[in-house]
Amino acid sequence: MVLRVLVWNEGRHEKTEPAVADRYPEGIHGAIAAGIGATLGDRARVAVATLDDPGQGLTEETLAATDVLTWWGHQAHDEVTDDNVERVRRHVLAGMGLVMLHSGHFSKPFKALMGTSCTLRWRDGDDRELVWTVDPTHPIAAGVPSPIVIDAQEMYGEFFDIPAPDELVFVSSFTGGEVFRSGCTFRRGHGRVFYFSPGDQGYPVYHHPDVRRVIANGVAWAAPAVPRRPPEISRAETGWFLG
Amino acid sequence: MVLRVLVWNEGRHEKTEPAVADRYPEGIHGAIAAGIGATLGDRARVAVATLDDPGQGLTEETLAATDVLTWWGHQAHDEVTDDNVERVRRHVLAGMGLVMLHSGHFSKPFKALMGTSCTLRWRDGDDRELVWTVDPTHPIAAGVPSPIVIDAQEMYGEFFDIPAPDELVFVSSFTGGEVFRSGCTFRRGHGRVFYFSPGDQGYPVYHHPDVRRVIANGVAWAAPAVPRRPPEISRAETGWFLG
Amino acid sequence: MVLRVLVWNEGRHEKTEPAVADRYPEGIHGAIAAGIGATLGDRARVAVATLDDPGQGLTEETLAATDVLTWWGHQAHDEVTDDNVERVRRHVLAGMGLVMLHSGHFSKPFKALMGTSCTLRWRDGDDRELVWTVDPTHPIAAGVPSPIVIDAQEMYGEFFDIPAPDELVFVSSFTGGEVFRSGCTFRRGHGRVFYFSPGDQGYPVYHHPDVRRVIANGVAWAAPAVPRRPPEISRAETGWFLG
Amino acid sequence: MVLRVLVWNEGRHEKTEPAVADRYPEGIHGAIAAGIGATLGDRARVAVATLDDPGQGLTEETLAATDVLTWWGHQAHDEVTDDNVERVRRHVLAGMGLVMLHSGHFSKPFKALMGTSCTLRWRDGDDRELVWTVDPTHPIAAGVPSPIVIDAQEMYGEFFDIPAPDELVFVSSFTGGEVFRSGCTFRRGHGRVFYFSPGDQGYPVYHHPDVRRVIANGVAWAAPAVPRRPPEISRAETGWFLG
Repeated sequence: MVLRVLVWNEGRHEKTEPAVADRYPEGIHGAIAAGIGATLGDRARVAVATLDDPGQGLTEETLAATDVLTWWGHQAHDEVTDDNVERVRRHVLAGMGLVMLHSGHFSKPFKALMGTSCTLRWRDGDDRELVWTVDPTHPIAAGVPSPIVIDAQEMYGEFFDIPAPDELVFVSSFTGGEVFRSGCTFRRGHGRVFYFSPGDQGYPVYHHPDVRRVIANGVAWAAPAVPRRPPEISRAETGWFLG
Repeated sequence: MVLRVLVWNEGRHEKTEPAVADRYPEGIHGAIAAGIGATLGDRARVAVATLDDPGQGLTEETLAATDVLTWWGHQAHDEVTDDNVERVRRHVLAGMGLVMLHSGHFSKPFKALMGTSCTLRWRDGDDRELVWTVDPTHPIAAGVPSPIVIDAQEMYGEFFDIPAPDELVFVSSFTGGEVFRSGCTFRRGHGRVFYFSPGDQGYPVYHHPDVRRVIANGVAWAAPAVPRRPPEISRAETGWFLG
Repeated sequence: MVLRVLVWNEGRHEKTEPAVADRYPEGIHGAIAAGIGATLGDRARVAVATLDDPGQGLTEETLAATDVLTWWGHQAHDEVTDDNVERVRRHVLAGMGLVMLHSGHFSKPFKALMGTSCTLRWRDGDDRELVWTVDPTHPIAAGVPSPIVIDAQEMYGEFFDIPAPDELVFVSSFTGGEVFRSGCTFRRGHGRVFYFSPGDQGYPVYHHPDVRRVIANGVAWAAPAVPRRPPEISRAETGWFLG
Repeated sequence: MVLRVLVWNEGRHEKTEPAVADRYPEGIHGAIAAGIGATLGDRARVAVATLDDPGQGLTEETLAATDVLTWWGHQAHDEVTDDNVERVRRHVLAGMGLVMLHSGHFSKPFKALMGTSCTLRWRDGDDRELVWTVDPTHPIAAGVPSPIVIDAQEMYGEFFDIPAPDELVFVSSFTGGEVFRSGCTFRRGHGRVFYFSPGDQGYPVYHHPDVRRVIANGVAWAAPAVPRRPPEISRAETGWFLG
């Protein structure tokens, strides 16, 4: 069964900053989609959407036809409508997978699913990031070296205010000595969420082959394992089992 | 240091249903507060508040002076204002403990902290509930038998749509054969959350000595272990550690 | 890639108890192997081995050619040699999957991998067991109802002295009111372990279609996600990363 | 109730290496015991024992009178008798707390309780270690800065072959860029285990005030929360609950 992947991107840096447009000529979403396509091949059908698309690219019809959504956002988190945030959350709880990338830690859908502030330390200073695997049995870590070496990156550091992840797959260090839980999984309702921090508009990280592999692994992992629930939030129901 | 406990209760069933008022002459909050006081003694100073108090009993001043909040609500979840929900959440993330009781699983603050729908199965049918300890090292389980026997209770059953708890302390069974993760802990930000399901307006469960003991243990466990953060949600901040 | 599955069984009850031999004419291993084969089909090649085979069916050559080992034992746990126990443990740590069934909770390999006593409550009294899914996103729970109904079973109850599982997939209740964490996953080294309690020599549980499906799902889940480490336990090694 | 703490040390480096004896004139155990005593004061009564004491300092009588055991070992792991290893494990499962320090990751009792190889990467190269708090609600992290700065230390790096910890409290980085899960908790039976990696015979780490505070916090946390089980491993027992 072909996995239906939707790569969503805010898509604003590319429009206003020539350096970003040069770095990502097809948009950040284009680079992410290319990486997923190159890794998963026929196993996935990859579409893209951005904030400036009709319905912000997050219509009911679109999400109902999506198995796994990847999300990149940064400067326009607040522009995503509350209705769209609730729609994304509802579909995740119903079974849609979600791969949340980098600055998406502070997006409204991620904060709504985590329940915490999702704050962290950060610094834009050309740090070298090393991404170490701490769960070598995890399929998301398959096929990448430990550590993954990213020559230049924005620093993200602890304390990262998230619930304790269900699985901790990667931990990063930075030139400055900071550490970060950079690859985390969470189950929410019938859906699976993978957060992966490497990647920034200011660095060509989404062209890095190991980063692309991890994102593709994350998409494959987040694919629903059980049939999708109806897109409504289920309500409490009476059940008798006295037979 | 004396623990400042606030026992919050919606307080509506007691006003409209004589059977509930008979069962809980001091209100459900009164019974819960009495149990905590009897167990923790001088270690705690217990206050009560209800939905019909000024500011719904949840003013900034009140919460700033609270170490651990216990919450009971049922029919009036929707009346709690969004501002108050956000205030409770903010204080939990800043370090205030929260003990969420029974039908509070569907309260707005709990859903906001969990990120999931928090739905479950239920049936009001005089089931016997047995509450089994599955983590005997946990201080919340200290001093109670396994199982705790509750002769008559509302049934709560799986699937309980919560994130996987950080610690699973109790699992219950019911006459009908259902099971429920009835005692669960969660860390959120700098705060600790304990959910405990036994207890209902329709049964005298908050007079049960073992249930009272568990709630008091939960309050002691949820007490902040580190100094309270300022009540604002912390923001991302730049940190350099290149010394 | 075809999954190489080895279904290991102590194989003694079948030889000495006619009722067991009647219930499982191909042996308990035969029933388990048939269920895996029926579910996984071409995806798996299933072999069987028993305690009375040469080398107790656990030679280095055999385990080196096994992706996932399923284990059933009961009355002869002590006869498994310490060398074989250590060999199984070593292969699991190197990446071989392990599906531990029912009374295997008290087998030497399971105790060696858990580090705890692995004791539990039990009663042989024709209880009805209901197996409830508490993690509906887990592939091991795919395709089975919640609850699975087993009309007659041995009771296994808490406290089950295991480390907190990495994932809790199933919780069972019994006629007597007991509860049990009946489906648990654990990562150990590069290997994955799934413990599943339903199944006993005294009941025809391994013919139950839902139980067979869960065991097959468990085998598929426990398959190595990354290349197998050499079968030696790795040693501490010096690593420089000052480049 | 006064906490009975036993600080156990292999005690060999101090006898053969003058530099270690100079660094720790009262032995490594003496420095650890002094730190615990200074922090916990009247709340604890601290005794010491070493490998060369009668019965290796681990007699039944001694352990039966110990609430929390701290352990340091390195070059003589293999000299600890199997009987003593089993005795320590049995007491931990019965409820005795265990604080395992640094190279104790490779001690026999730790490996027996974890079930894994407990291997890691290491390098003795005067790295700066930064110990970051990733669980600020945890009492073990109370009263120490994040990060703790240790100017010179042996490097311990991932992959650390342990089961996923129940709670991850600290993550360290090193000058070389490596990361390590340096503060981890585990429940085993009725006992609690805290592993904390900072500390080495070659560096004066056990005189560091923050390290001393963490160890004392760990001892307080590992104290039994429920009455001690008898020192035998419990066996499966029949329980009826059909009343």
